[in-house]
Amino acid sequence: MPTLDLSLSAADLTRAICDIPSVSDDETALADAIEGAIRPLGHLEVHRDGDTIVARTRLGRAQRVIIAGHIDTVPVNGNLPTRDVEDDGAAMIWGRGTVDMKAGTAVQLKLAAELVDPAYDITWIWYDHEEVAAERSGLTRLERSLPEAFEGDFAILGEPSDGQVEGGCNGTLRVVARTHGRRSHSARAWMGENAIHAAAPILERLAAYRPQEIVVDGLAYREGLNAVRVSGGVAGNVIPDLCEVEVNFRFAPSRTGEEAVAHVREVLDGFEVEVADLAEGARPGLDSAIARGFVAAVGAEPRPKYGWTDVARFSARGVPAVNYGPGDPSLAHHDEERVAVAQIEDVERGLRAWLTTA
Amino acid sequence: MPTLDLSLSAADLTRAICDIPSVSDDETALADAIEGAIRPLGHLEVHRDGDTIVARTRLGRAQRVIIAGHIDTVPVNGNLPTRDVEDDGAAMIWGRGTVDMKAGTAVQLKLAAELVDPAYDITWIWYDHEEVAAERSGLTRLERSLPEAFEGDFAILGEPSDGQVEGGCNGTLRVVARTHGRRSHSARAWMGENAIHAAAPILERLAAYRPQEIVVDGLAYREGLNAVRVSGGVAGNVIPDLCEVEVNFRFAPSRTGEEAVAHVREVLDGFEVEVADLAEGARPGLDSAIARGFVAAVGAEPRPKYGWTDVARFSARGVPAVNYGPGDPSLAHHDEERVAVAQIEDVERGLRAWLTTA
Repeated sequence: MPTLDLSLSAADLTRAICDIPSVSDDETALADAIEGAIRPLGHLEVHRDGDTIVARTRLGRAQRVIIAGHIDTVPVNGNLPTRDVEDDGAAMIWGRGTVDMKAGTAVQLKLAAELVDPAYDITWIWYDHEEVAAERSGLTRLERSLPEAFEGDFAILGEPSDGQVEGGCNGTLRVVARTHGRRSHSARAWMGENAIHAAAPILERLAAYRPQEIVVDGLAYREGLNAVRVSGGVAGNVIPDLCEVEVNFRFAPSRTGEEAVAHVREVLDGFEVEVADLAEGARPGLDSAIARGFVAAVGAEPRPKYGWTDVARFSARGVPAVNYGPGDPSLAHHDEERVAVAQIEDVERGLRAWLTTA
Repeated sequence: MPTLDLSLSAADLTRAICDIPSVSDDETALADAIEGAIRPLGHLEVHRDGDTIVARTRLGRAQRVIIAGHIDTVPVNGNLPTRDVEDDGAAMIWGRGTVDMKAGTAVQLKLAAELVDPAYDITWIWYDHEEVAAERSGLTRLERSLPEAFEGDFAILGEPSDGQVEGGCNGTLRVVARTHGRRSHSARAWMGENAIHAAAPILERLAAYRPQEIVVDGLAYREGLNAVRVSGGVAGNVIPDLCEVEVNFRFAPSRTGEEAVAHVREVLDGFEVEVADLAEGARPGLDSAIARGFVAAVGAEPRPKYGWTDVARFSARGVPAVNYGPGDPSLAHHDEERVAVAQIEDVERGLRAWLTTA
């Protein structure tokens, strides 16, 4: 069984936990190593649920913060073990998970071990199955088995944000728009009705759609409405009787899920529209005193987060939440995924500064 | 090994050869039975190539006609053995192959055995692999191995034509129109370029297209231009970088293949268009004296054939060719495929009348 030494530098700890592969469904070895390193620490109360580990201080502080990171990655593609590389002279750690999001998790593990007397009570959560369907996430399980783990005054997800503070997130809605027709042999097309031709206005409207930029709590969220899949057709000599266009709406956190659905139905008025899945966004939550203190302490300029992240789970429970982690998000899931060592150190410094000076 | 008695009625012979299943690739048992029944006949010179059987008279007649039928069917789907059923009191034979096209082949086999002294020399061809890609057809093989089998003054394919004479056939062209884009995460759609949206004008133009009806040698051919398949998309959260629309153009036999391609390229001007496959049509070929005599003898009103059939092979070699066979073509490949016994008898009577009175 691999073990972890939490007194390593955050960069070395990043290397170490990346080199314990933990693709979704295969997180147990890493979860065991984390539990093995955290469980002996006297200042943390440890709870394990599957491959999710919760570690909490009980210092009676006036406020509690939740700091969470997932421990799974998307599949390895020849990009492990990690390697040290350079980008324009800057030291980087290359390999699967370095960006999404083991560097962030490494910083959290190091600080969890080190900060025996933080300014806030802290609930650390390291969880499994973030990279797959939301219902399989360790956080979904935890919401049922240990709901008090979600109680707090502020939450930080260590998702890669280039060392900046990214507030809230857009919501995401997926619908399937369908057109129907009548099959016939294509040699006698007039006996049928072409469902693919009937879908032309759907694509037209999507192509003509101009997405909005919506300011929420001072951050500008760019929306997007896009066909992400289209399919139709039976055979090369058959007039198709069905065409489906899968549409993804990324919507500002000022819209509720219901409003997002209504908006898409309005754009696709006249067509059959079925909601496939929906996750509301999260407002940036940067107006609370604790959030403003955090932003000031880490010295970052808050930006909007476009992708949906687990901050929305906290936001939905009334806990303001932000993303703050090392790594360029555009390299997440990339075969050349790599994180700057300096950014790992920056985030470590930022978090430590805030957690030690209330 | 099954045997065939060619002295049975054409209806009984239809039942018999339908009950020897012969889905494409599995025609050998039926081909063996046909060869076994034809080979002993003294008036026919028999040639076998794979599961294709050619049987020719050598009477020194002034004119030679080619009469051909395929012996394969599309897959059986619980519709064998044959059954006798009734439609509004009319006797029908139900089951796979009854329409496409064993009833026609049965009539041909019966007449091949019976007509020892026909008014024309006859080249009978019963061939395999018609229901699959054209390059696998027994006729494609025969064009190389026995090209003289295609020499004649007139050709009749026994494809189902409801007992009517269907002249020539439309051509068929399939192209793939492609649009390209640039992938990005759908949370940051503005960093990508949506290939599915870019395909909107392709569907619009196809939906707006008004197909022509073109008169060729007195028969009106209806054309058709249709999307038969559309596909695009990578994942539910990715802006797609490719969309493909497969388009099928059914074109009148007055257009060459080249002209058909040019027409489709013009309709889809500005888009990448790749030709996937092309088969030219066949002019009805009803202006020759022998064709006119045939039409008069069988007592039918010629109609255009919309679907592509092997008549085009003969037409391309300068041999006028028509479709003439029992069975409603709209029931071909249907699970409820069934042929009227009276129509089998009509076609038998028509062919016999023409072949015995020059």
